Amino acid sequence: MKPPVINFSTLQAAVEIAATLAFALSGLLAGARKQLDVVGLCIIAGLSAFGGGTLRDVLLDRRPFFWVEHADWLWALMGLSFAAMLFMRGRHLALTEKAIQWPDALGLGLFTANGTLIALDLGQPPIVAVLMGVITATFGGVLRDIVCNEIPAAFHDHRPYALCSFVGAWVLVAAVHVNAPQWAAISAAAATAVLLRGLALWTGWTLPAWRIR
Amino acid sequence: MKPPVINFSTLQAAVEIAATLAFALSGLLAGARKQLDVVGLCIIAGLSAFGGGTLRDVLLDRRPFFWVEHADWLWALMGLSFAAMLFMRGRHLALTEKAIQWPDALGLGLFTANGTLIALDLGQPPIVAVLMGVITATFGGVLRDIVCNEIPAAFHDHRPYALCSFVGAWVLVAAVHVNAPQWAAISAAAATAVLLRGLALWTGWTLPAWRIR
Amino acid sequence: MKPPVINFSTLQAAVEIAATLAFALSGLLAGARKQLDVVGLCIIAGLSAFGGGTLRDVLLDRRPFFWVEHADWLWALMGLSFAAMLFMRGRHLALTEKAIQWPDALGLGLFTANGTLIALDLGQPPIVAVLMGVITATFGGVLRDIVCNEIPAAFHDHRPYALCSFVGAWVLVAAVHVNAPQWAAISAAAATAVLLRGLALWTGWTLPAWRIR
Repeated sequence: MKPPVINFSTLQAAVEIAATLAFALSGLLAGARKQLDVVGLCIIAGLSAFGGGTLRDVLLDRRPFFWVEHADWLWALMGLSFAAMLFMRGRHLALTEKAIQWPDALGLGLFTANGTLIALDLGQPPIVAVLMGVITATFGGVLRDIVCNEIPAAFHDHRPYALCSFVGAWVLVAAVHVNAPQWAAISAAAATAVLLRGLALWTGWTLPAWRIR
Repeated sequence: MKPPVINFSTLQAAVEIAATLAFALSGLLAGARKQLDVVGLCIIAGLSAFGGGTLRDVLLDRRPFFWVEHADWLWALMGLSFAAMLFMRGRHLALTEKAIQWPDALGLGLFTANGTLIALDLGQPPIVAVLMGVITATFGGVLRDIVCNEIPAAFHDHRPYALCSFVGAWVLVAAVHVNAPQWAAISAAAATAVLLRGLALWTGWTLPAWRIR
Repeated sequence: MKPPVINFSTLQAAVEIAATLAFALSGLLAGARKQLDVVGLCIIAGLSAFGGGTLRDVLLDRRPFFWVEHADWLWALMGLSFAAMLFMRGRHLALTEKAIQWPDALGLGLFTANGTLIALDLGQPPIVAVLMGVITATFGGVLRDIVCNEIPAAFHDHRPYALCSFVGAWVLVAAVHVNAPQWAAISAAAATAVLLRGLALWTGWTLPAWRIR
């Protein structure tokens, strides 16, 4: 008799799946640009999708990893990589990049909320929990860019990305602090990050540059 | 009274030593190309030789590392690095690269088999164990290339390398599944990976490219 | 009634703070050169300051991390990054780079001594403890350079840096071996590394190059 919880969980699972696929696709696109082979594409898709959560779990000394508990995801990623290689062509790249911006923003929000909550539950101090949320949401992309031999876009493109995650993570910390129910805390935090990211994409807002010269 | 086991272990140890040296040499060659100094050469030799196994052990939360248990290896690597700097000249580089292809292939096979078996023994699901075998065998080289500021060759050169490891790892999983004795499982898995790699080197077979443009 | 210990601890804390700030500043300078945005600057400052110690703790399976126990440091780093962006201009860069050489050398010495001691206390063999000291002192900079898409300066610039740390770490191992008191062991090790580094900076001594061609 807990329909709202079940509904929320189902919604959350659906968003998570869409977001993970978006993260994996961002890895495939980056790999395609760098002409990686099929092995490299599979690995970079996995790294983009699970790298952030895995790094968080290594730092928090937390096992098992998501992709160990749900090992079917590894098959799904391999399937996705092969499907992309078979069906995706050059003209699809820009389109896909545009299309994944929105599930990617959803993933940014949801992974931030989940990562921060996990760290808070383990008793980490707020600023550390926030950092863990940001790492969960952004370090898949950071690892992707390092492997692709690029400076990570999250640090370099002057578009707010980690910043949206940072603000959303603080919303979660505040919501937990006032004892909000878990679904409300996650929703508020994720919605904040997603809306900020959406606003940033829509307005083309850029981070202030360091006028070093 | 277990001569076959002892013989197999001795053979395995000999192959492991040759393979580790081949991995370390591949690091030295890459470092030499990038004009690293002596400190960088020592570190990149160690990273190439032990990076894959260490990353696997961090992911599996397994201690002590190989190079902590057998700390003499660290001395051996430093000696190898100095010897290479003293005796190796430009004209040796191409020759060495050719010569280490075979111990490197042996290492690919044996590290795949060992890494997969270790993960299976810890109760990991088959696909995760296979991934751990592939990481053990290939991520030393991946870390080497990242430090050298290159896109990892294993993802990029369109030559089957991680793929041979992947197939070999599945052979090990299958052999364990049918309760084959450990030496037979390791031998079959390692032989599969080595033969595939040898075939790939010999025929110049390349992975299908993604015709993105 | 232990004034010397307290004095030493206070001195040590002061040196540690100066050194951590120097490491963080080195990250900010590198990030500024690469035109990172404010998020990237905060993260690279943190990576440079705490990356080495964190990698050591992950390898040694040791928790909590320094920046989890002393989470205020994360705020300090964010403040430092913002202050740098507000007040630092192009003409300050070279000056700052020169000015941080000395606290950076102090950090090299002190982090080497601390890192080696921590590993010895955990019962690691001497060569492993030495390696952990070197990782503590140098891998913040290595990770900084990898993120900035450069070959790590510690491996590439042919200036003795990790080498000074290496020698200092052995001094600590020797001092612990002869049962020197802890403050004397740390002081001797740190002083050795700092003096060697100072000497190297002052004389412009370079590591012998590998005459590969």
